[in-house]
Amino acid sequence: MNEEIGFQLSNTCSSTRARTGVIFTSHGNVSTPVFCPVGSQATVKALTPEDLIDIEVKMILSNTYHLYLRPGIDTVKALGGLHRFMSWDKPILTDSGGYQIFSLAHLCKITDEGVFFRSHLDGSEHFITPELAIKYEEDLGADIIMAFDECPSHDSGVEQVQQATERTHRWAERCINAHIKNKQAIYGIVQGGMFPLLRRQSAQFISSLNFDGYAIGGLSLGEPKNITLDMTEETTQLLPVDKPRYLMGVGAPEDILECVARGVDIFDSALPTRVARNGAVFTRTGRQNITNARFERIDRAIEEGCDCYTCQHFSAAYLHHLFKSRELLAYRLATIHNLRFMMCLIDDIRLSIKQDRFACFRSDFLNNYETTSEEMRSQQKEKWLRARRATNM
Amino acid sequence: MNEEIGFQLSNTCSSTRARTGVIFTSHGNVSTPVFCPVGSQATVKALTPEDLIDIEVKMILSNTYHLYLRPGIDTVKALGGLHRFMSWDKPILTDSGGYQIFSLAHLCKITDEGVFFRSHLDGSEHFITPELAIKYEEDLGADIIMAFDECPSHDSGVEQVQQATERTHRWAERCINAHIKNKQAIYGIVQGGMFPLLRRQSAQFISSLNFDGYAIGGLSLGEPKNITLDMTEETTQLLPVDKPRYLMGVGAPEDILECVARGVDIFDSALPTRVARNGAVFTRTGRQNITNARFERIDRAIEEGCDCYTCQHFSAAYLHHLFKSRELLAYRLATIHNLRFMMCLIDDIRLSIKQDRFACFRSDFLNNYETTSEEMRSQQKEKWLRARRATNM
Repeated sequence: MNEEIGFQLSNTCSSTRARTGVIFTSHGNVSTPVFCPVGSQATVKALTPEDLIDIEVKMILSNTYHLYLRPGIDTVKALGGLHRFMSWDKPILTDSGGYQIFSLAHLCKITDEGVFFRSHLDGSEHFITPELAIKYEEDLGADIIMAFDECPSHDSGVEQVQQATERTHRWAERCINAHIKNKQAIYGIVQGGMFPLLRRQSAQFISSLNFDGYAIGGLSLGEPKNITLDMTEETTQLLPVDKPRYLMGVGAPEDILECVARGVDIFDSALPTRVARNGAVFTRTGRQNITNARFERIDRAIEEGCDCYTCQHFSAAYLHHLFKSRELLAYRLATIHNLRFMMCLIDDIRLSIKQDRFACFRSDFLNNYETTSEEMRSQQKEKWLRARRATNM
Repeated sequence: MNEEIGFQLSNTCSSTRARTGVIFTSHGNVSTPVFCPVGSQATVKALTPEDLIDIEVKMILSNTYHLYLRPGIDTVKALGGLHRFMSWDKPILTDSGGYQIFSLAHLCKITDEGVFFRSHLDGSEHFITPELAIKYEEDLGADIIMAFDECPSHDSGVEQVQQATERTHRWAERCINAHIKNKQAIYGIVQGGMFPLLRRQSAQFISSLNFDGYAIGGLSLGEPKNITLDMTEETTQLLPVDKPRYLMGVGAPEDILECVARGVDIFDSALPTRVARNGAVFTRTGRQNITNARFERIDRAIEEGCDCYTCQHFSAAYLHHLFKSRELLAYRLATIHNLRFMMCLIDDIRLSIKQDRFACFRSDFLNNYETTSEEMRSQQKEKWLRARRATNM
């Protein structure tokens, strides 16, 4: 392991598997647990890098698949790499494109060699191998890159999942062999679907390879939440203690608390930014829909005491007005608030672990926070996926 | 005239009618010539007040018509007035709603008493009189408010324009009589369509009333540019020298130069922000369309030497990518650039008048700046008007 891009474990909780640590990168250190906002197209939607710094975002996730299609890996490389292109000089993590190809692209054919697919933007044909994915991620120049995996849907049968998991394992070895950039950490991805045995086998196999960190893929795809938590627990128990663990695609406040308790260090999710653009703002008592008529004359911040730019300057009534008027500023102000909420939450989590009172913090938070029902979440996600497909975004 | 809300003339150009001055308001002083970005719905589209301050915007325009319909004058008043509602503590100018009713609303009936119309948002029925318009503007609390006028379209016949102009005169008197808030300046509006005689009559009549400033209305509505300039000149020649002159709705860089030369002090226009959201960015050589393929790998700012946030942090290639990807940040970054361009232009104009080299500055600027053709401008405006009607924005 390269010392400059390693991980150091700091504190562990005495009553859960929660832990704190530090990830070292050549763009600065990141304390864990950490939540990474999503900037698939080299921009966290509606925000500038300056906004992200004000919010105290420490690391963002971007997507090889999206950037490969537009503006193209060569273009980003010619413009000095992803950090320079988007004017963000803090750590970046890139997903390899595996999940996006399986969820967004029009999949044509998958073989051991790689994946042949059609772009969701223009139908153009492409072929990506594990080696090419790593090359693209190296060209983008993120601080942490992900292995190229096959991600089956949450309702796939055991045989299909087993096949995908085994292929993911073969690809993981090829990714490690292909990776040459030594200032860039590479993380392996555990698959295994919703099958505990396959999860454990995958965790053991991927852990046996010398990755700089280990990710849990193939979750938060629409399965019931208790399954997400069980699969996370099955996996983290078998991952090395001295390497960071990254749960891909998880980002609701309540889920982060539960998964930190199960030993996860890194999270990413588009949820806080996506729901913000639909008018759902986070508060310590749960999500509120700012377009609700009851906010029309509320002359207080969305959440009193919140130190974000939005809450420091604007009333809930003003935000309500902006959403009702479909003004662009609405999306930005709500996004700022939700991301700041996430940053404060993860800071509080980290501090509570350091002070060994995480279990209390978790139960206090969850007692106050009314979670969105499973049914509602799944409806919202389905609606968003449909809209995303319809607009080719 | 109230001294706190007055105007002081500073410099005059020796070869044109250009001049500099200062407008005093209870939210600070504004040097003229000044350009006011438009924030119809209590937000300059895509920007925060903090962005506007960075750009050095000195005064913005908002719209009584829009705010009356949504969120409602009472709501803005209950939330502390327009400045507090939108968190902008610098000067605000409000249009009375006259022009918007005639261009946006479904007009039902106009009488000397007032205007009966249907909302363009939901078809609801409303009746506004000059007295009510002034009451609404007082409740909003802008620093400068406009009299309620009747604004005929640019192709109206002489009889219709004469009738509208005479009604505007009767309404102007009623507006002055209705206005009671003494920290708020009230400006009269000259009409007269495209008829020099009516323009002169209107300028003389409106000037005879004791307004704090005088506006030129009913221009930039689709008429040929030479007519706009001629009508402006007809009007300014007859307006008092010691009061500010405001040309409503004019905002292309080349038009501002020509109209400053004809003695105008204040401009407002949605053009710089509207074209920005369509990817047209201002440079000293003319408007550029950033979505053009030739920007794909341009690793320089939109305009080298520009001190705006966008040019200081991002390449033209990145902005091109954001527009191609329809990312929200595109609209904000292009808006920042165009407004900063306008602020620098107006600063340069003001300085050149002070140093009595405005005529040279004007010809140098216009020699370098390729103006958008009349045909293209009129097509773009028509397209925008159609889109605005279609989306009820």
